[in-house]
Amino acid sequence: MKNINIFDLHDFKGLVFSSKLVHESPYMKVLSFNFKAGQSLPLHSHDLEGELTITVLEGEGEFLGAEGAVIPARAGDVLVTGIAEPHGVRAAEDNDLRVLVTIAPPI
Amino acid sequence: MKNINIFDLHDFKGLVFSSKLVHESPYMKVLSFNFKAGQSLPLHSHDLEGELTITVLEGEGEFLGAEGAVIPARAGDVLVTGIAEPHGVRAAEDNDLRVLVTIAPPI
Repeated sequence: MKNINIFDLHDFKGLVFSSKLVHESPYMKVLSFNFKAGQSLPLHSHDLEGELTITVLEGEGEFLGAEGAVIPARAGDVLVTGIAEPHGVRAAEDNDLRVLVTIAPPI
Repeated sequence: MKNINIFDLHDFKGLVFSSKLVHESPYMKVLSFNFKAGQSLPLHSHDLEGELTITVLEGEGEFLGAEGAVIPARAGDVLVTGIAEPHGVRAAEDNDLRVLVTIAPPI
């Protein structure tokens, strides 16, 4: 049993988003991402089995999906996507964004 | 790709905590738990392989662990535990608590 606070773990960075590994095991991989206003993780995918969730802990932004999909993202949102399905995240132009990504099985 | 907001999904309940399934697949199970002040999910474990995370989205409380361990829980905390390891959660006496539980592989 271990407890990690993602607010204590890392802050925001100037040029690109900040990401930190929270946990990795044979069962899952957990990553924390902090996006300053306007920063993004562009649409991407991996040709692998499995799923990931993107949980918004603080702030506002958008989830990005296949075929130009743009889904508003706010605190309490849990996006579920296949690892092989195109996905991305961006902070609003005027609002920072903190999300937690959980990937199972880990990649 | 689907998006669920746990604040919209369910509220708090009077007698015992409220829990809702957010997502279930061959890869993971995701559940949302809302604890009113004083409510708890008592210490328990399952004799199964795998891990779970308990992520605090809002409020304050405590994680419970083996041998009477009590770990403060606040927004941004990510507790990682084996499914087979004793674990529990309780809201503070004066504060509601919302957590997201992710179990991989699903049980």
